[in-house]
Amino acid sequence: QQQQQQQQQRQQQRQTRGSPRKRQSPSQKSFAARKSQPTTAFKAIGPGCRFAMLSMISQSSLRTTREARRRSGWRRGRTSVPSGSSSRCTLQCPCRRSSCGAWRSAGWMSGIGRLEQLGMVGGGQLVGDPFANDPERHPALRIHSRKPCNAEVPSELIDLNYITPSALWYIRHHHPVPVLHDPENTFRLSVDLSVLNKGIKELSLAELRALPQHEVVATMQCSGNRRKDMSKTKRTSGTYWEQGAISTAKWSGPLLVDVLKAAGVSDQEALDLSAEGAEHVCFHGIDSMSASIPSHKLSSRQGDVILALEMNGEPIPRDHGFPVRAIVPGVVGVRNVKWVGKVQLSKEEALGDWQRGLNYKILPPSVGDAKQVDVRKIPAMQEASVFSAITGAEQGPASDEGTNFPTFDAKGWAWAGGGRGIARVDVSGNGGKSWTPATITQGHDQKPGREWAWVFWSAENVVTVPREDGTVELVSRAVDKAYNAQPEHPETIWNVRGLGNNSWFRKQVPLE
Amino acid sequence: QQQQQQQQQRQQQRQTRGSPRKRQSPSQKSFAARKSQPTTAFKAIGPGCRFAMLSMISQSSLRTTREARRRSGWRRGRTSVPSGSSSRCTLQCPCRRSSCGAWRSAGWMSGIGRLEQLGMVGGGQLVGDPFANDPERHPALRIHSRKPCNAEVPSELIDLNYITPSALWYIRHHHPVPVLHDPENTFRLSVDLSVLNKGIKELSLAELRALPQHEVVATMQCSGNRRKDMSKTKRTSGTYWEQGAISTAKWSGPLLVDVLKAAGVSDQEALDLSAEGAEHVCFHGIDSMSASIPSHKLSSRQGDVILALEMNGEPIPRDHGFPVRAIVPGVVGVRNVKWVGKVQLSKEEALGDWQRGLNYKILPPSVGDAKQVDVRKIPAMQEASVFSAITGAEQGPASDEGTNFPTFDAKGWAWAGGGRGIARVDVSGNGGKSWTPATITQGHDQKPGREWAWVFWSAENVVTVPREDGTVELVSRAVDKAYNAQPEHPETIWNVRGLGNNSWFRKQVPLE
Repeated sequence: QQQQQQQQQRQQQRQTRGSPRKRQSPSQKSFAARKSQPTTAFKAIGPGCRFAMLSMISQSSLRTTREARRRSGWRRGRTSVPSGSSSRCTLQCPCRRSSCGAWRSAGWMSGIGRLEQLGMVGGGQLVGDPFANDPERHPALRIHSRKPCNAEVPSELIDLNYITPSALWYIRHHHPVPVLHDPENTFRLSVDLSVLNKGIKELSLAELRALPQHEVVATMQCSGNRRKDMSKTKRTSGTYWEQGAISTAKWSGPLLVDVLKAAGVSDQEALDLSAEGAEHVCFHGIDSMSASIPSHKLSSRQGDVILALEMNGEPIPRDHGFPVRAIVPGVVGVRNVKWVGKVQLSKEEALGDWQRGLNYKILPPSVGDAKQVDVRKIPAMQEASVFSAITGAEQGPASDEGTNFPTFDAKGWAWAGGGRGIARVDVSGNGGKSWTPATITQGHDQKPGREWAWVFWSAENVVTVPREDGTVELVSRAVDKAYNAQPEHPETIWNVRGLGNNSWFRKQVPLE
Repeated sequence: QQQQQQQQQRQQQRQTRGSPRKRQSPSQKSFAARKSQPTTAFKAIGPGCRFAMLSMISQSSLRTTREARRRSGWRRGRTSVPSGSSSRCTLQCPCRRSSCGAWRSAGWMSGIGRLEQLGMVGGGQLVGDPFANDPERHPALRIHSRKPCNAEVPSELIDLNYITPSALWYIRHHHPVPVLHDPENTFRLSVDLSVLNKGIKELSLAELRALPQHEVVATMQCSGNRRKDMSKTKRTSGTYWEQGAISTAKWSGPLLVDVLKAAGVSDQEALDLSAEGAEHVCFHGIDSMSASIPSHKLSSRQGDVILALEMNGEPIPRDHGFPVRAIVPGVVGVRNVKWVGKVQLSKEEALGDWQRGLNYKILPPSVGDAKQVDVRKIPAMQEASVFSAITGAEQGPASDEGTNFPTFDAKGWAWAGGGRGIARVDVSGNGGKSWTPATITQGHDQKPGREWAWVFWSAENVVTVPREDGTVELVSRAVDKAYNAQPEHPETIWNVRGLGNNSWFRKQVPLE
C-alpha cells in the first residue's frame, strides 16, 4: 500500500512538474474548412522585392545553413509570421524595408534556395505561395503544421493495416513538395563518385528501373516520435508528435550498391567503401534537404538499402519522395531522404543541420542549452532503438482477484531499429509491478537480422489498478532481440530536442 | 527530502527482499593453497565400474543432453559431490551399486562423452580427474568454480589495460579444457557443407594459416555478467558474476566466410547463405559444446566474424580456445565457441542446451518457472545490449554547493553489442536525479558500425549525496549509438536465468 501511495505521489509530481504547450490543433478544424483556406492568406514573395528573390535563389551554391544565413544577409527579425505556419523563428529580408513582405522560416532556409528547380519561379519572378502545389492530404491525418506539412497517423488508425496505405502515411517535410516537369524525360539521378576519382554519372528513371529490383517491407519512424510525452517533464523543441509519426510500406527499387556499381564503382570497391575513402553516402534531395549514412550500411546486400521507385506497388506518391527515395531500413526517418536528386560518396558526413546540427542529435539530459556542448562530438542519429505503443484497450470482466481489479485487453505495435526485431512485448496494469506477456499477432515471420518492419501485438486479461480519477493506466514495453529494453521514464532520457523517446508507453483509459 | 526518504526506503526494501547465496569464495584462499590441492580429492571413475566408463564414452553419438540422460541410465542421485566441484546436481552411475564411486555433474553430461578425444582415456580405461590437465590460472583471477573453471577479472584490474592480457581474461568453461596431441599434424577442422550438398571438407592448421589473416579487436562478455546484482532482487540460477565476466583481445585468423569458400562455398552462395538453405552456422567445440549464429552475420566482410588462430599476437592459450576459436564480435560470449573442431552450415540452430535450452534465453520477468513457457519460442541470446560499470572512484574536495556534498572522480568501462558503439556515458551521485557526462578516454576511434570493443571513460567532480551509513552511491549508465539506454533497475528486467543485466551500474563508496 505504501508503494502505491508513493506511486501516486510520483504521478502527481509528474503531472504538475511541467505542462505541455496547449494550442488549438489544426486537425480540430474540419478537412473541408482547412481545404478552403485560401493560399493568399500567406504573404507572397513577389516582385516587390527582387533582392529577396535573387538572394534566395543564389543560395543553392552555399554549403551550410549557418554559412548561408551569414552570407545571405537574412537576419532574425520581427516580421510577422503568416497564420498557419509552424515556424516560430523567421528571418527578415536583407532589403530591410518595412514594406517588404518577404519572409522565410529559419527552418527551411537552405532549402528554399532551389525553388527555381521546383517550378516555383516563373518568368524570372517568384510568385505566390511556395506550398501552393503541395498535394492534397488524407482528411484522417492529424496535421501538426501545413507549411511545411507535418502530419501523424491517429493512434486508432496505426494498426488498422500492417502495411500502412500510402495515403495514411505520416508526413514530415522540411520544405514545399517539389514539382517535377516531365520527370520521365528530364529527371536524372546524379551519382557523385569524385571521392573515388570516378567523376559524376547520371542515371535516368528508365536506367534505374532496368537494374534488378529489390523489395523490402520496412517501418519508418520520425526521430521525434512521442516527443509530446517527453515534453511533459520539461519543454523540448520540435513538433509535439504523439505515437503516430510511424508507418510501414513495401518499397521496391534497385539496391543502392547496384546503382553505385552501375555508375562505375567496382565490385572490389563495393566490398569496403570506407577503405576506399568513402566512409559516408550522402543523399541530396531536390528540395535541398541533405543527409547521409555510414557506408558500411552497404557492405551487405542483406542490409537492404535501396533507392525506392515504388511504394506499396505504385510509383511513390509526391508526398513520400517521387520519383526516387532513399530507403535505409532500421534507420531513423530523416536518413530516408525523399526526392533524391544526387547520391554522393564522401569522406565526410553530409553538410547541413539535418546531419551535423542539433536537429537530430541527442544531447545529454544535463544540457538545457545547446551552447554548452560541442555538437560535432555528438553522433547524429542513425539506427533507431526499441519502441512500443498501445493503440487500443477494451475493458473486460473483473479479475478473479476481486471486482476492484478490472481487466483489459490491449493491442498495439512494437518496432526496433537495426533489423534487430522484437523478442517480446509486456503489458502492465499496475505501473510495471507485474507484467502480462503479449502475443505477437503480425510481423513475427521476418528474416533474422533483417526485421525491418514492426510487429503488432495483443495482450489479454491485463489486471489493472483503478485510480481515483476513474481511469487505469496501461503500460507497454518491448524488448528487442539484442535484449535492449525500453527505459522506464522519459525523464531519464530527456533531451532538449525531444528525440528518441522510447520510454515505456503509458496509456490512461477511463473505466466503464 | 521526501524523495530521499522514499529512496532510502526502497533501498532498504531491496536489501531485505532477497539476499544472495553466501558461501566462502574459493578466491579467498591463497593461490598457493589452491594449487596444492591434490587432484585425488576427486573420486576417480576407475576400473571399479566399467559400466560407467563405457556408458559415458558411447554418448558422443547422442544428440541432446536430455536424450543422453534418458538413454544412458544415469539418474539423479544422492552420490556425494567431491569437494571443490561447482556442480550442485550429480547423476548416479547406472550400475546402481553403492560401492561405485562414479559420479558426474548434470552440467557437463553431454560433454564428457567425448573424453576419449580429449586424451582422458588411457588404455581403454578412464583414469583420474578429467580436469587434471586444465591449465594453471593467474592468481589474480577471481575463481567462482574450478571444475569446470569459471573465473572473473577483479574490478580493479578490468581497466588496467585496454587490451586485456590473455592470462587475465575471464574464463567461462562448460567442460574440462581439451588436451590435443600434436595438433599441428593431427588437428583437422571439419567444414560441413552437407546442406549445400557439398559434403564435409577438412582443413589443417597450416591451411587455415595460409588464408588471408584478418585482425579484430573485440570485447567479449558472458551473458550472465552482473548476475549477482540482478539476484539481489530475487534469486536467479547460474554463476553470480559481478562486473568482471568481460575482457578484450586482439584476435586474428581467417574470415569465416573465407574458410567456407576454401571448403567449397561459391562467391554467389556466400552473398546470401540463408537463401541457399543455410540459415545458421553451427560451431562444434571438441569439448562437445555447440552453439550457432544466424548466417546473415557473414553477409558482410565488415561483420568481422573470424576463426581466430591467435589471441593478442600469440597462439590462443588453451584456456581460451587453442587452436581455433570462433570470434563473433558484438555477440554474447557463448557463441564465440572455443576449441572449434567443426563448422557446419545448417537449416536449423545448433542442438543442445546452450542454443536451444534455457541456459541462454531471457524469459519474461513474469516467469519464475521455466515450465510455464514454450522455450522454443524465445530467441536465444545473440547480440549483446549496452553495458557500463564503474571500476574505481576517488573522493575529491567538497562541491561548491557546500561541504555536505563531497565530489568524486570515477572511471570505468562501457560496451555495446552489435558494433553499435557508445554514444555517451553519464555518471550520477544522486541516484540519477542529475548526471555528469563522462569523457571517453580510450576506444573512441573505432570504425562506425564495427565498434566491437569497449570504451574506457572517466568523470570528474561528480557531486554526491552522503547516506546515513557513511557511503555515497555512484551510478553509471551508457547510451549506444542507436540510443539504446540502460534500464534503471534490475527488477524491471529480472529473469530466472539472471541473463543480460544491463541496468544502471551502482557502486557504493565509503566516504573518507
